[in-house]
Amino acid sequence: MYNDEHYMRLALDVAKAGVGQTSPNPAVGAVVVNGGAVVGLGAHLRAGEPHAEVHAVRMAGEKARGATVYVTLEPCSHYGKTPPCADLLIQAGVRRVVVATTDPNPLVAGQGIDKLRRAGIDVDVGILKEEADELNRMFFHYIKTKTPFVTIKYACSLDGKIATATGESKWITSSAAREDVHRLRAQHDAILVGVNTVLADNPKLTVRIGQQRKNLLRIILDTKLHTPLDAHVVTDKEAETWIVTGSGISRKKAEAYERLGVRIVPMASAHVDVRDVLFLLGEQRVTSLFVEGGSRIHDSFLRAGAVNEVVAYIAPKLIGGREAPTPVGGLGFSRLAEAMELDIRRIETVGPDIKIVAAPKRKEE
Amino acid sequence: MYNDEHYMRLALDVAKAGVGQTSPNPAVGAVVVNGGAVVGLGAHLRAGEPHAEVHAVRMAGEKARGATVYVTLEPCSHYGKTPPCADLLIQAGVRRVVVATTDPNPLVAGQGIDKLRRAGIDVDVGILKEEADELNRMFFHYIKTKTPFVTIKYACSLDGKIATATGESKWITSSAAREDVHRLRAQHDAILVGVNTVLADNPKLTVRIGQQRKNLLRIILDTKLHTPLDAHVVTDKEAETWIVTGSGISRKKAEAYERLGVRIVPMASAHVDVRDVLFLLGEQRVTSLFVEGGSRIHDSFLRAGAVNEVVAYIAPKLIGGREAPTPVGGLGFSRLAEAMELDIRRIETVGPDIKIVAAPKRKEE
Repeated sequence: MYNDEHYMRLALDVAKAGVGQTSPNPAVGAVVVNGGAVVGLGAHLRAGEPHAEVHAVRMAGEKARGATVYVTLEPCSHYGKTPPCADLLIQAGVRRVVVATTDPNPLVAGQGIDKLRRAGIDVDVGILKEEADELNRMFFHYIKTKTPFVTIKYACSLDGKIATATGESKWITSSAAREDVHRLRAQHDAILVGVNTVLADNPKLTVRIGQQRKNLLRIILDTKLHTPLDAHVVTDKEAETWIVTGSGISRKKAEAYERLGVRIVPMASAHVDVRDVLFLLGEQRVTSLFVEGGSRIHDSFLRAGAVNEVVAYIAPKLIGGREAPTPVGGLGFSRLAEAMELDIRRIETVGPDIKIVAAPKRKEE
Repeated sequence: MYNDEHYMRLALDVAKAGVGQTSPNPAVGAVVVNGGAVVGLGAHLRAGEPHAEVHAVRMAGEKARGATVYVTLEPCSHYGKTPPCADLLIQAGVRRVVVATTDPNPLVAGQGIDKLRRAGIDVDVGILKEEADELNRMFFHYIKTKTPFVTIKYACSLDGKIATATGESKWITSSAAREDVHRLRAQHDAILVGVNTVLADNPKLTVRIGQQRKNLLRIILDTKLHTPLDAHVVTDKEAETWIVTGSGISRKKAEAYERLGVRIVPMASAHVDVRDVLFLLGEQRVTSLFVEGGSRIHDSFLRAGAVNEVVAYIAPKLIGGREAPTPVGGLGFSRLAEAMELDIRRIETVGPDIKIVAAPKRKEE
């Protein structure tokens, strides 16, 4: 016999099975407990497939009757690709439902809970809410803002250099850190770099984890369309590539890329504005974006206030050099009071390197 | 009843009482155990005062006879300011001596141990040697090289900036981190900055911990003697100040500083060479040096290979800016293969900031 927190933690652990593969849906876990025993569990694994509650109640079978269901997110109350989970729980005859956090969409938040309560089911809300919100922070951000959750990632030396003064950058961090980056990429819908990064490194921007591949949408910010036609991201067909440009690009020039299967996305203005790009990506159902530089691109996102998470890999070495480039370049903030304040979420070591995960400090509301 | 490691750990803990206040001597701890009970303990607290063994044996009194003595450093065998501790232990009639590490001076290493053994005392060497070497790493370095142990300290943002692009630097890190810096300063004999730091910040370079003060020798690297005559370090008399200059400084100019009690130390060459400065300081019995910038000074020490420890305080904020200065500026290394590789020793949080302590990777010998 355990308490609510124990079973909700289990539901959160089960939910993690779906992290990075449910977009544009959230990752959700459910656990069914009856007579002090777990009788069913489930996770939402992929958009269009059954919700967590469906798997869990199905596994429980007749034992769902009179059971308590722990679910990391408020059960849905509307018909989408699947029937409402609130109805399913009512039909299954569960006695009590424990919910970690409510639906992030303010228009429907609470409706699933209301429906359950009206059917006479006891509902408790808020058990391990913080953990549940953290698990789906990308999805929740997207639902609330209609723009993707933005993760900025960089790798630098302990003295803050992403390359030497002469531009040598391969590799600052260890292979263990670089593998970790691929796991992080896989948790996002799209990956974004600036054209300077394409010109300097000709990256593939794919996800390679052992023998596994996962294709993220690749996005290049390239105001004047300078991406080489023979760049990996243009020619390799490993994943879809969009090049976001300013307004002044000729049709003829764009067609050369389009013939190779690349989508050219011209913005309305001559300069590409980060916020405009994010709204455009949001419309295209990109819920999360992994931004991997270069340092001017990071600065643009920083100054647009468009950073939701920062992942810094710090290699234990000193490079030095007044002219050596740093993780966030461009103009930067000229006053310290303007700097983006962060909360440290995690400090880990990855091989010999240090990994720091941080998020912008929440403004007092 | 405990094992040797237990008592040696206790001796190491006792030794810490002297850290930062025994220079030019090492910090040493001793524990006397008889019949399974601690009967005496002692630490060396200040140069010229009794060694750890003297305090511990004195406290044990008659119970030293037949006892085991745990001492973090090989007992001395020569007459210095105090009689040899090896003789004292023999006279006290101890049965066994356990030593963590031998004398760092290769000319006398092992002589104290030999003396004890010749007197019929059992001696075991090497228990917790690594910890004991770490405790006195500054002293050991000085004894072996005749130059001070150099700690480089800086504070920067998560994106590696020590100031904004317009030069605002007060303050990047928290007051908790700045207090920690004062504790670190106190563990060194001298503190060093470049003239640019004096010009930019007019620092006091004193140690202020609550109501406590500790005066370190202050050293300014100032090739052309541009330190303002009204700078804190020149006028405040809080601590001794030496200004190290190049060879071309006029006597008359130097005298203006000397009248204010500042020592002008001209080097033989027009440019000040870091290695020359370290040898000069070593001759002056400076065993440890805390280098607090600016970024060009750090680069000079880095490229001279004259760094023994790096302490980086990283504030959880992003500042950005191609032109914002970084912890190690100057020329730096142009090739990644030349970068100074470090081993991370500790990662801590100090208030909201992250503190990383690292040391150059030991070359394979």
